[in-house]
Amino acid sequence: MTDLQSRFQPLFDPKSIAFIGASNNPIKWGCIVLKNLINGGYQGKIFPVNPKEKEILDIPAYARVGDIPQKPDLAVIVIPPPAVPQAISDCIEKGVRAGVIITAGFAEVGGDGEKFQNRIVEKARKGNMILVGPNCNGIMRPSARLFPEMPSIFPGQGPVGIVSQSGNIAASLAQRALKSGFGISCMVSSGNEADLHCEDYFEFLGEDPQTEVIISYVEGFREGGRFFDIVRRVAAKKPVVMIKAGETEAGSRAAQSHTASLAGSPAVFTGVSHQAGIIPTDNLEDLFNTGVGFLNQPIPKGNRTAILTMGGGWGVLAADASSRYGLDVVKLSDKTLRALGEILPPWWNPGNPVDMVAGNIEGAMIKIIKVLMAAKEVDCLILLGIMGLFSMQSVFDDNATESTEDRLAEINRQLGSAFDEIRQLSHFHGKPIITATELPFGVGDMEDRIFHMIGEKGFAMYKNPDTAAKVLSHLVHYGQRHIKNQY
Amino acid sequence: MTDLQSRFQPLFDPKSIAFIGASNNPIKWGCIVLKNLINGGYQGKIFPVNPKEKEILDIPAYARVGDIPQKPDLAVIVIPPPAVPQAISDCIEKGVRAGVIITAGFAEVGGDGEKFQNRIVEKARKGNMILVGPNCNGIMRPSARLFPEMPSIFPGQGPVGIVSQSGNIAASLAQRALKSGFGISCMVSSGNEADLHCEDYFEFLGEDPQTEVIISYVEGFREGGRFFDIVRRVAAKKPVVMIKAGETEAGSRAAQSHTASLAGSPAVFTGVSHQAGIIPTDNLEDLFNTGVGFLNQPIPKGNRTAILTMGGGWGVLAADASSRYGLDVVKLSDKTLRALGEILPPWWNPGNPVDMVAGNIEGAMIKIIKVLMAAKEVDCLILLGIMGLFSMQSVFDDNATESTEDRLAEINRQLGSAFDEIRQLSHFHGKPIITATELPFGVGDMEDRIFHMIGEKGFAMYKNPDTAAKVLSHLVHYGQRHIKNQY
Repeated sequence: MTDLQSRFQPLFDPKSIAFIGASNNPIKWGCIVLKNLINGGYQGKIFPVNPKEKEILDIPAYARVGDIPQKPDLAVIVIPPPAVPQAISDCIEKGVRAGVIITAGFAEVGGDGEKFQNRIVEKARKGNMILVGPNCNGIMRPSARLFPEMPSIFPGQGPVGIVSQSGNIAASLAQRALKSGFGISCMVSSGNEADLHCEDYFEFLGEDPQTEVIISYVEGFREGGRFFDIVRRVAAKKPVVMIKAGETEAGSRAAQSHTASLAGSPAVFTGVSHQAGIIPTDNLEDLFNTGVGFLNQPIPKGNRTAILTMGGGWGVLAADASSRYGLDVVKLSDKTLRALGEILPPWWNPGNPVDMVAGNIEGAMIKIIKVLMAAKEVDCLILLGIMGLFSMQSVFDDNATESTEDRLAEINRQLGSAFDEIRQLSHFHGKPIITATELPFGVGDMEDRIFHMIGEKGFAMYKNPDTAAKVLSHLVHYGQRHIKNQY
Repeated sequence: MTDLQSRFQPLFDPKSIAFIGASNNPIKWGCIVLKNLINGGYQGKIFPVNPKEKEILDIPAYARVGDIPQKPDLAVIVIPPPAVPQAISDCIEKGVRAGVIITAGFAEVGGDGEKFQNRIVEKARKGNMILVGPNCNGIMRPSARLFPEMPSIFPGQGPVGIVSQSGNIAASLAQRALKSGFGISCMVSSGNEADLHCEDYFEFLGEDPQTEVIISYVEGFREGGRFFDIVRRVAAKKPVVMIKAGETEAGSRAAQSHTASLAGSPAVFTGVSHQAGIIPTDNLEDLFNTGVGFLNQPIPKGNRTAILTMGGGWGVLAADASSRYGLDVVKLSDKTLRALGEILPPWWNPGNPVDMVAGNIEGAMIKIIKVLMAAKEVDCLILLGIMGLFSMQSVFDDNATESTEDRLAEINRQLGSAFDEIRQLSHFHGKPIITATELPFGVGDMEDRIFHMIGEKGFAMYKNPDTAAKVLSHLVHYGQRHIKNQY
């Protein structure tokens, strides 16, 4: 364990937690956040702190931190700002080494709030206690079943790390992960960053073996130079996908009002981010889609793209989008076209996109993928439509007698084999396969479940050819920057 | 009824249908399309035509069109290409005035296919019969409960007209409508456009009183001059939102291969489309989102935009996106800020975006919307978060004893009142209100249902502040072009 990992251990893997401001009143955050901590499945001891109650949610409560019969590793703090400095003193005296302060009303409102915040930081730093927040949404660490958070979102453990200077966007991203079947390694809503700065979280996630990709929303940096050093180092090891908000004048004004103490010039950031190897995106969909798009994919050696499509129109859209995003929709060699011609029916119109709409014969899709992966002129593949990976009749036939759950289990089994094969081919050749699909033919309510299944297998699956091309272009750019010398 | 409407009546409102190539074999299109026609709820007579069967799907069948005991209005044709010319002759002899040819293997494969296609068109035009296709996905006309189509998608009647030169994209768009609660007026997959061209469909939808907005995917035009005249006329009456595919070299090659006979220079199209007042988009999400974004909204008189947000981060993203899309995130007047200050709590940070995260008191959101609608300096509003339109506790409380269905009914009732009020305010002031939201706090599986409910009320609801800003910018541009002289 590195020094940094040791320092963060009480925060992300606490053996026990003091919950300061616990409440039995169901509309208070002291109750909602505590419930989330319990419902998230935390296995260590929880010590609710409340001067007026004997029990909170059936757990014995303590009047003060000092009364807790052992040393908690972490304190979750939801009391009003004026009471927080004393709580921090109590924690330090007790030996608590980390805190998450969810309460708002500190530096972001100025005046007394700012004074309280300064006092807290001073105490914490002297006392060797690290603090997340204040004015934040909480944190998530699924590997420790740790969810001290405002939103009631409980994603499973997985490779996606989330750092956000906005609590609602942190929740948005975790919600997207949960809905699409991906697990997360860690989520931090950094709030006012009174003590720990987002630079610290990037550094931690860079070293964190659970984290394979970092997605982040930032409005500004407190330590520009350190940020640059850290992120350049991290981005060389794992993709760092980011929205830098406040890049327009109106957005910058809004960001100033949202997280007042931050500053930074858009132009400077753009230059720095490019040099650091950050993958820039500018909206939530792109941010999430790009992050998960890196999972389970080899990084391509070039931009020469093949498109395999089950529908002509989708193929045209993918070709347009690929060109717009700087991919080369490569002219396939005669050798490749001949090999494809042996699989596809005589009326197939040779070219790239490879349009197999009229040749959806059992097993053809995997055969074509093999040909395209082996083609020397191809660096990567956009696959449009996954119906060719199913035995359609068994699962989509109206007259099938199986229950929906049985059919879903059969789809899951078939998709499991197909994606195993795709993963092997893709990694053997070092060429990513990015997929978009629709399931429009009578699948109905199964659609979301099927997308979720594919997410659980660790693959991103998009609903739009444009998205597939955009994400692939990010993989290509990442490859151009970071792996130049590895081949 | 106009001449054009009379001409299209046998196609879109047929009293009876000959189904040529009907089959009992469940994996043949002659069975699948017929089932869709039946399952879609068509109320007129259906006459299956098949020389070898007495009954198809329990409906009495006829060996030839000539044997049908009455004159069908429409023929749906799914037989192989060599047999289609004779079928057309039979139809004309019987007095059939319209046909939908779903079969592929005509001009798009060249050779004999092209000859068959030419023969069909020649016969149809002499015989005064109009034809959709061949090589198409079918049509939908929910008002006539008419679904002679390959995909099994049955949206309800509504204001969205769809014209697509790709069958799979036609299905994608109809599927999106169905999933998000919107009805459609008409869907045409135009296929090879042997007889009717997409120009004809635009002309029809322009006159069609059901159609309030047209969304379309086109790869090229057979009648450039006529297209320009028609679309300019239609776009002045209702928004025409379009993907013109094949705008890059790779896309153009793909389009050539997909719908071979079409041509056209990207540069020419861009100029023409701008002059004609087409609203251009370049991917499926934007196409659909923009189309439905016009529904139930007044067209704004300017680009001065207020943003009302329940989360700081979403507000910053909306401000950035608004600027990027050419909206003016307007400085609110002192008068407006004072009025807002009376509703929001003392720690509210005055500005635009109006961030009400800390002031989500019952009823505050509608009050703020009223202030912003009445503000002289505001032309339009982006509303982020709809939780302020609910009485949250009644519907999202974990401990609520009501069933999910009861809670959804209550949400639907509350949303109904809220959106009635929003619609009235918006139309009274002539200022659109474009909404994006997430429902992350324990709503779980209800989320899709809630979005669907809002769609059913005729309102687009996005999941991303970027999308709301992008769609609003299209409304603003449409207003600048088309309603300049109305105020």
